[in-house]
Amino acid sequence: LDEFRSIAELFAPLARAEAEGLRDDAAFLPARPGQELVITADAVVEGVHFLPGTPPELVARKLLRVNLSDLAAKAAEPFGYLLTVAWPESWGEGARAAFAGGLAADQARFGLGLLGGDTVSTPGPMTAGITALGYAPRAVRRRGARPGDVLLVSGTLGDGWLGLEAARGRGGFSMSDRDALAERYHLPEPRLALAAILRSYARAALDVSDGLLADVGHLAFASEVGCLIQLERLPLSAPAAAWLARQSDRAAALEALASGGDDYEIALAVGPEVVGAVQAAGAAAGVPVTVVGEVRAGTGTTVTFEGRLRAPLRTGWRHD
Amino acid sequence: LDEFRSIAELFAPLARAEAEGLRDDAAFLPARPGQELVITADAVVEGVHFLPGTPPELVARKLLRVNLSDLAAKAAEPFGYLLTVAWPESWGEGARAAFAGGLAADQARFGLGLLGGDTVSTPGPMTAGITALGYAPRAVRRRGARPGDVLLVSGTLGDGWLGLEAARGRGGFSMSDRDALAERYHLPEPRLALAAILRSYARAALDVSDGLLADVGHLAFASEVGCLIQLERLPLSAPAAAWLARQSDRAAALEALASGGDDYEIALAVGPEVVGAVQAAGAAAGVPVTVVGEVRAGTGTTVTFEGRLRAPLRTGWRHD
Repeated sequence: LDEFRSIAELFAPLARAEAEGLRDDAAFLPARPGQELVITADAVVEGVHFLPGTPPELVARKLLRVNLSDLAAKAAEPFGYLLTVAWPESWGEGARAAFAGGLAADQARFGLGLLGGDTVSTPGPMTAGITALGYAPRAVRRRGARPGDVLLVSGTLGDGWLGLEAARGRGGFSMSDRDALAERYHLPEPRLALAAILRSYARAALDVSDGLLADVGHLAFASEVGCLIQLERLPLSAPAAAWLARQSDRAAALEALASGGDDYEIALAVGPEVVGAVQAAGAAAGVPVTVVGEVRAGTGTTVTFEGRLRAPLRTGWRHD
Repeated sequence: LDEFRSIAELFAPLARAEAEGLRDDAAFLPARPGQELVITADAVVEGVHFLPGTPPELVARKLLRVNLSDLAAKAAEPFGYLLTVAWPESWGEGARAAFAGGLAADQARFGLGLLGGDTVSTPGPMTAGITALGYAPRAVRRRGARPGDVLLVSGTLGDGWLGLEAARGRGGFSMSDRDALAERYHLPEPRLALAAILRSYARAALDVSDGLLADVGHLAFASEVGCLIQLERLPLSAPAAAWLARQSDRAAALEALASGGDDYEIALAVGPEVVGAVQAAGAAAGVPVTVVGEVRAGTGTTVTFEGRLRAPLRTGWRHD
């Protein structure tokens, strides 16, 4: 596959004006006074982050959405992205076109465009990285939570992990639950609808990609506080609630749902006086927001189930 | 290797303040009114872009410098970069530390800092990508060259390619020439010293990474003009001139030097009335700038040697 043709045919139609139609090898962004530019990067490797045989358009869409989820947690409006791809020979012309098609579909849906990148060949597994950029009048950070804040989380937790379990033939799911969970795993919904709420109310926030317990630990670390998570408050989807009902150890099962990762929900810390306003605004935006714990003085994440302390888990900074 | 420890120990010391000590997973850049932000990305794969066994610090430094060369061609001042790395198991703790050490050395030298990124594991070859950012009061683009402009190039051409030839035991070089050329191949010098000159005089510019003939073709394509390159005008280092003297077909040998790539010099198009000023300013900045051809109406790159037309080469958009 000729790289020039590849870039012109596959990726030039995805380019924003600032990327000069990819005839240049850089993008040029004018300053937006009064706004911060938020930049984040994520990478995936075939066989590590997605199963060989995953449809290329899903690989592309999830990679883009994972980055968009980071921007959403910062209350940033998506603007553009740079893409680096290492193609193995096994990814032929059809697979590459499907990958570009997945990007095209989701960049149109989420209102951003390609700013540049690099395509190379590899003797190894398909590897791709996206650097995503967004603008925010007031970007929300991981740091900023204070003792006494309330911890909330958007949507439902554990579905992405259960989706992967289901894809592996585990968990005893019905056909329709399996499909619903697989969809959550493959195509997370970046919570961009929460931008205005985060901007108005959040002292700190982050997206839940490594599991709630690990990510709340990252928020605690950045904010130099401790966090308490009450497992019985975890918001669950109907398929996850049905799965939970089948488990013998409810606390351990909830802990698994809070550790599995691939949620791409948003955890946020707000002052206790605005919890009602946040939940009302979330409901109005179509995204339920649920209290799952609180911020305390100290360090790390404390986990309880119905008032009893759980033993500490290994919830380090996992990059996967 | 624990990823949390890896990030904290290896990369947090490299972070700019805007990256929140890498405790956040994004960087936050305030607007710089009156300046454009220039963004570019490049990726490398072990065994494709560098030989297995290359010292990790050299891999890191070259990857950073290749991106800095892109910024230099835009007349942008380097600000920061995001890094994605896929580590194979064969890159142990020492190799990873050496890689980070290479970045530390060159980011200090060139005045930029780490803004974020992602580290993942891979069963394949080591793969790394950098997205580099710089600011420019007036960024120079690939488009903008006009018929009648003069084409110039900084420094000397062909040394990077000859360095690779020499490393492969070809070319019949003396020991000292081989070392000098290998240095050019491993550690290109981004021509950041030319920023003020490009900003003042260049109608269009780009860095020469794929070989002069291919890259001038990219400038022609973006500017919608044709370019003429006169091979006998190519600026050569002493080792390259000595190599040329050993070749039987001088024109073909010059063509090889203009096609080999890995130069990381800057080609620029300027109005004929400022050629003298550009060359004087280049000399004052310690970087010779040599006339190698001209811009014409038409498309593509025309190559001559002592007035005679050379047959067209395959000089497509090569990503390597």
